[in-house]
Amino acid sequence: MEFLNLISVEEAKNRIVENFRDFQLGIEEVHILECTNRVLAEDIISDIDVPEFNRSTVDGYAIKSKDSHGASESVPSLLNIIGEVQMGQITDKVIKTGEAMYVPTGGMVPEGADGVVMIEHTEKLDEESLMVYKSISSHENIIYKGDDIKKGEVALTKGRVLTPEAVGVLAALGRTKVKVFKKPKFYIISTGDEIVDIDEELKLGKIRDINTYTLYSLILRLGGEVVGRAIVKDDYELLRTEVEKALEVSDVVLISGGSSVGTRDYTAKVINSFKGKGIFIHGMAIKPGKPTIVGEGEGKAIFGLPGHPVSSIVVFKALVEFFIKEKMGIKDYILKTRAVLDFNCHSAPGKKTYQMVRLREIDGILYATPNYGKSGMITLLSNSHGYIILEPHEEGVYKGEEREVYLI
Amino acid sequence: MEFLNLISVEEAKNRIVENFRDFQLGIEEVHILECTNRVLAEDIISDIDVPEFNRSTVDGYAIKSKDSHGASESVPSLLNIIGEVQMGQITDKVIKTGEAMYVPTGGMVPEGADGVVMIEHTEKLDEESLMVYKSISSHENIIYKGDDIKKGEVALTKGRVLTPEAVGVLAALGRTKVKVFKKPKFYIISTGDEIVDIDEELKLGKIRDINTYTLYSLILRLGGEVVGRAIVKDDYELLRTEVEKALEVSDVVLISGGSSVGTRDYTAKVINSFKGKGIFIHGMAIKPGKPTIVGEGEGKAIFGLPGHPVSSIVVFKALVEFFIKEKMGIKDYILKTRAVLDFNCHSAPGKKTYQMVRLREIDGILYATPNYGKSGMITLLSNSHGYIILEPHEEGVYKGEEREVYLI
Repeated sequence: MEFLNLISVEEAKNRIVENFRDFQLGIEEVHILECTNRVLAEDIISDIDVPEFNRSTVDGYAIKSKDSHGASESVPSLLNIIGEVQMGQITDKVIKTGEAMYVPTGGMVPEGADGVVMIEHTEKLDEESLMVYKSISSHENIIYKGDDIKKGEVALTKGRVLTPEAVGVLAALGRTKVKVFKKPKFYIISTGDEIVDIDEELKLGKIRDINTYTLYSLILRLGGEVVGRAIVKDDYELLRTEVEKALEVSDVVLISGGSSVGTRDYTAKVINSFKGKGIFIHGMAIKPGKPTIVGEGEGKAIFGLPGHPVSSIVVFKALVEFFIKEKMGIKDYILKTRAVLDFNCHSAPGKKTYQMVRLREIDGILYATPNYGKSGMITLLSNSHGYIILEPHEEGVYKGEEREVYLI
Repeated sequence: MEFLNLISVEEAKNRIVENFRDFQLGIEEVHILECTNRVLAEDIISDIDVPEFNRSTVDGYAIKSKDSHGASESVPSLLNIIGEVQMGQITDKVIKTGEAMYVPTGGMVPEGADGVVMIEHTEKLDEESLMVYKSISSHENIIYKGDDIKKGEVALTKGRVLTPEAVGVLAALGRTKVKVFKKPKFYIISTGDEIVDIDEELKLGKIRDINTYTLYSLILRLGGEVVGRAIVKDDYELLRTEVEKALEVSDVVLISGGSSVGTRDYTAKVINSFKGKGIFIHGMAIKPGKPTIVGEGEGKAIFGLPGHPVSSIVVFKALVEFFIKEKMGIKDYILKTRAVLDFNCHSAPGKKTYQMVRLREIDGILYATPNYGKSGMITLLSNSHGYIILEPHEEGVYKGEEREVYLI
């Protein structure tokens, strides 16, 4: 049975990279106020120095730092105030030995000065006389021209997720528009005679369509959009018609259910019926989530996900997220933390096992408690903080062991 | 000087809780497809058992588990097939000793059966005869009625962020609509004579308005919306007029800049000019971010944030995020990981110090490298993965020490 020829998650990722080498996501330009959480599709090269002038980081007096050396509360230095830098104004005055000039936070530091003493450490005796009570070192409280970002420097790289911090860099460079990847378009198909939509009556034996909603939410969180969704009965023609429709309007088609070794497994047949490479992953050594299929049709990506809600979430995160991030060049790191296990756990031999856990902190030490449950249970994930991964070669993990917990 | 009466971050949080006890965010009902990342404003109590029937988690044969005991590849058990459960159908057949019935994944397990043997471990000899090659234990591959969620149980609690996993629970319960907190409305005011908007010409001495954009992005990520923004010159009347406008349309007013010990510090005066409690935090022992003020006017929250972009981000995360999450009852935990420091770092005595770091993994060990820079530098945050916190009583941290890194 081809299906039992399971491959590892790493091998599945390699095949996805290999087979979708020519697959491309579009690019669009958006305003800086609309770019949060989007992904940069260009390198941002600075055409200016940031800051464009030597800037004070405090309210205080620009001086030659050596004029403050030896100064203290009991033995202050006495300096001559030669003026004040107005906020947002430039000055052409030059600080000479024995002189000081007031500069507000963010203001321009006049030439000649190599430090700014904070106003709290000074006392103005009169309009021209300043007592300095503290010694400062050279460069103290000054950001020099280009210190933050240099002209010609790559300030943000392609594939960067636009967090508030990155948005700040764009603002500093005066970029109001930025090229980002278009939101990938997804089409969600739930298959199964037993599946009814959540607002339909739930007759005994039927199952509510959970996957459409969890996948919808996962897609939004991944930065994609859903352009269509449908529940399809276990019928080859019905499924083929729906997938055909989906391939016309979307970049990625997700088909949940119908990929198990049941009698009604039409998903694989349908995927292979379209022009393209067809299926190149059929079954994966991952628990939960074994019945996973991935293929290409009409240039689009088609993922057959397990019907069980938890399994489909796990496979979405393992493969679909990987695929989109790979195409966008996102080099993020998976959020994880180390925790002490307070349980023993045996793994499924030869399979990569994802064991869900809850975290709790006691006296500053983080403990992971297993959240057991079967992969059909939706609460298994909603009640967990993360999971530990047991590699295929591992027999299990033991109480007291410290492991990485991948956060969900 | 009142300003130098600095309080700790913990004390600031206490004062916020205390002074905003009566502050409330609105509640609205949204469709399940629009609830992702929103925050539950009600407990979700299940009015059904999930699943509503005993369900198989695999494709296989429902049997009495003891009929498989002792079965192996070489010595299979022979059972009598009495029928097939159709997907999405109910069955009234009862499994007796020596009998088996085919059940697809998600299908109803007939009465009498206490386990399902996977199809891979069976062989159908003819329409009525089944060889079972593996022993199963009682309850194997069955999710029982109510195992996932019990009728009357609180499935999701108020304050829960609606992740894909939580959306799955709503779908399982057939909830198409759900009560969530309204998006808090923010108004952003950037103050300073030197501030120009990012699409304006940047004359020497002027500074681009970075804070409006980073704050805008932080607000979106926090689940809020921005209802207005303005750049205001250092002028009491202009600022008061703008804040008055802001208080009419928003829940939270953010004023960045103008809260330092400069000559043009009108923010405090403006906040105190409105009806209400006025300022109850003026200065905080946090580095960066000392010049922070918080007050209440006309029943709304007003935060005076430092003008430096990094400081304003740090204070936003420390106080504004805390405030909103506290009002929504979000009990999330801060994302953090442990890492080995590869540097020595001295702290600012008596202040809580946030030291930015970059993370890198070498041979499975996570190392944190300091990202030095002054708080006026926007790249300080955009080039960091997280920060370590040095408590006021600590003198510093040392190379080789393992510390919590808070992820940004």
